[in-house]
Amino acid sequence: MSLIEPRTLKGFRDYLPSAMVPREHLIDTARKVYKSYGFLPIDTPALEYEEILTGKGGDESDKQLYRFEDSGGRKVALRFDLTVPLARFVAQHSHELGLPFKRYHIATVWRGENTQRGRYREFMQCDFDTIGSESIACDVETALVIHDLLQAIGFDDFKIHVNNRRLLTGLLERLDLEGRSGAVLRALDKLPKIGPEKVAEEMATSAGVSAAQAREILTLASVSGTNDAMLAQLEPLVASSERGRDGLGKLATLLGSARAAGVSDKRLQLDVSIARGLDYYTGTVFETFLGALPTIGSVCSGGRYDDLASLYTKERLPGIGASLGLDRLLAAMEELKLLPEKPAVAPVFLPYFTESRLTDYFKLAARLRQSGLGVEFYPEAKKLGNQLKYADRRGFRFALVVGDSEWEAGRGQVKDLKTGSSASVPLETNGAVSAELLAALTASH
Amino acid sequence: MSLIEPRTLKGFRDYLPSAMVPREHLIDTARKVYKSYGFLPIDTPALEYEEILTGKGGDESDKQLYRFEDSGGRKVALRFDLTVPLARFVAQHSHELGLPFKRYHIATVWRGENTQRGRYREFMQCDFDTIGSESIACDVETALVIHDLLQAIGFDDFKIHVNNRRLLTGLLERLDLEGRSGAVLRALDKLPKIGPEKVAEEMATSAGVSAAQAREILTLASVSGTNDAMLAQLEPLVASSERGRDGLGKLATLLGSARAAGVSDKRLQLDVSIARGLDYYTGTVFETFLGALPTIGSVCSGGRYDDLASLYTKERLPGIGASLGLDRLLAAMEELKLLPEKPAVAPVFLPYFTESRLTDYFKLAARLRQSGLGVEFYPEAKKLGNQLKYADRRGFRFALVVGDSEWEAGRGQVKDLKTGSSASVPLETNGAVSAELLAALTASH
Repeated sequence: MSLIEPRTLKGFRDYLPSAMVPREHLIDTARKVYKSYGFLPIDTPALEYEEILTGKGGDESDKQLYRFEDSGGRKVALRFDLTVPLARFVAQHSHELGLPFKRYHIATVWRGENTQRGRYREFMQCDFDTIGSESIACDVETALVIHDLLQAIGFDDFKIHVNNRRLLTGLLERLDLEGRSGAVLRALDKLPKIGPEKVAEEMATSAGVSAAQAREILTLASVSGTNDAMLAQLEPLVASSERGRDGLGKLATLLGSARAAGVSDKRLQLDVSIARGLDYYTGTVFETFLGALPTIGSVCSGGRYDDLASLYTKERLPGIGASLGLDRLLAAMEELKLLPEKPAVAPVFLPYFTESRLTDYFKLAARLRQSGLGVEFYPEAKKLGNQLKYADRRGFRFALVVGDSEWEAGRGQVKDLKTGSSASVPLETNGAVSAELLAALTASH
Repeated sequence: MSLIEPRTLKGFRDYLPSAMVPREHLIDTARKVYKSYGFLPIDTPALEYEEILTGKGGDESDKQLYRFEDSGGRKVALRFDLTVPLARFVAQHSHELGLPFKRYHIATVWRGENTQRGRYREFMQCDFDTIGSESIACDVETALVIHDLLQAIGFDDFKIHVNNRRLLTGLLERLDLEGRSGAVLRALDKLPKIGPEKVAEEMATSAGVSAAQAREILTLASVSGTNDAMLAQLEPLVASSERGRDGLGKLATLLGSARAAGVSDKRLQLDVSIARGLDYYTGTVFETFLGALPTIGSVCSGGRYDDLASLYTKERLPGIGASLGLDRLLAAMEELKLLPEKPAVAPVFLPYFTESRLTDYFKLAARLRQSGLGVEFYPEAKKLGNQLKYADRRGFRFALVVGDSEWEAGRGQVKDLKTGSSASVPLETNGAVSAELLAALTASH
């Protein structure tokens, strides 16, 4: 029989332990932070009816959808994000869930994207959202969760950029340019590249914006400085628009509350240039950048939306949330050399020498595990050198070497595989693991 | 625009927080146990080339496969288990991984099964395997991991049934019935139902087994009693077959080592009736039953196989592993009322009263979180009764009530939502959370 070539599909990849150990750690960290704010986990099926998923994320998403007919003739598709399934989920279960509903969802999504740009067709999303409340308290909390997430993962130098789309929509409303925010935003997006004059030209062509109107819009778009200075500069620009004042007030509350909760202005920055999608978000928006690697793009983004599930229910469900770009963050951490090189998950390696002592090895390992220490026992009584090579490759912290003479003497050699030092300690005292052994195997330096 | 009905596909389901919290807890527990033995996590794509997945699990699996053509014209399918992807993975990466390779894999699989019997088409598997060693140490360890898993999940009354297929294959070899184990096993499977005479008849018809041969086979199949008694009874039955003696010796070593590691005979039972699949497994086999709910079937099963990846590589890769039936176990725990009824993940609920104090609430919550306490802040300044109803529904342990007069006095009311008791404590001492507050919010009884 000829062999089948073992390979993965283009755009898909295996996670070896060296990648999977930090990935699991990242997921655990995210869960802990989400839980510390009362977010609850949910899960939804990977496969949904096609009609649930299409027409929600836009044409681009529809094209990227993995869709097919199942053997029962149903048109089905793999989810491409966690927001559309959340909308369906909340519409379906809202009475059981109660509002406000705070959920996190960490799961795989699939997109048949062009893989040229180092993108993958299968990746993990890590979302949290609060549904059913328009209170600014939720916006504050979203900023705090993003902050605590990045900090808990181990980053010190990062910046959350925050804006409120009502600043611009308020201004446009006052300028009688309501409904043209899409075209205006598309032009403004090019500001760093083409400069204010060309942007004004484009706004004139695409949105009928006059020179005077363009001046006001460009003044708003160029506000910068400290958070307090920006709030002061923005005030006169939006003063005559109720919507603008509301947006500005919310930003001020958000920045003040986050400061009270211990988030420094170095880490939370008002930035009028971020908009996050042209139509979806309606209020507060967030993007997050790493100081050491800003070019990788935002690693945690989100914002407030007016209505989550209007495709599936007449109940109005406003909310706010954000998504941690787990795989992008992992790639960044790899580039910044923040990941451990070796994937050992148990600290103690126990080589196997004396075949007649197999039960004793198991007894010893079991007792160490009962003391809370992870122990990997090598399954074959090979040469010590081979076994230690394996241990080194896996990155164990300690080897506990017990051979013939050690069993006789009731002692073991604890080898510190980092420092190379070694110590002989008694294995047990009064029928339990000795304190010396535990101390030697938990030493940290 | 007409609404789309929010619904899941037949055989698929949403996990609400009440189901997802215990599911995540179960996954965490499994990970901890796997890691304590040095198993490392991996992940593989949900989608594979169809040719990788077909023809490996048998006709039944092929029929249940979700398969389709992707937009690039590739024939692809969703994985139906984690063993076939492991085989492909090890064949593809064996040089990078090194042997022995111990991995765990906790992931979703899909099978287009008949949903009549309460089965789902999407479920999670929770596998661990050791590849590349034939040492009995791996078999012992597999039993210990299953034991520690069930114990760590919280079960006290469970039994791991163990057998070695070499007992029967050795006997058949001696009886010149080699290669007929499939037919013999199929007949033996009916022993509890139809009795020894009918089984002998069937073996005669289907496998050409003589009456004398049938007597020996049925003697082997009826061995029972304590582990030691069974080992003694089995010895003469397999004495003249090298393979049988080997199987018996391995069972004896396994039972002895597990006993040394603290596993009582009450929890590990030699059972000559289990066989686990007719061809796949070649040595030790395991099944695990809950004392309180044996009818739900085995919750953790596995065994030793001679060669994992022969479809994809010429390298011989023997191994042993088992799979925790996560969703089956969850169903059992629900039936046995072992799951918490309410899904709160943060212990402290902080109602919102005084709108002018929003920043103070965030400051207080942030400090409690920094002290390691999860805190959910209710986002809307509604009536206390409404907020406490929400807290009760979510199952919080404590509410920390701080209204106008409490803010004035610098004190909070800690309500124990289980006992109904309440205490007034100072919020801070010397600019930090007061020890009284922390003590009141961590009291457990």
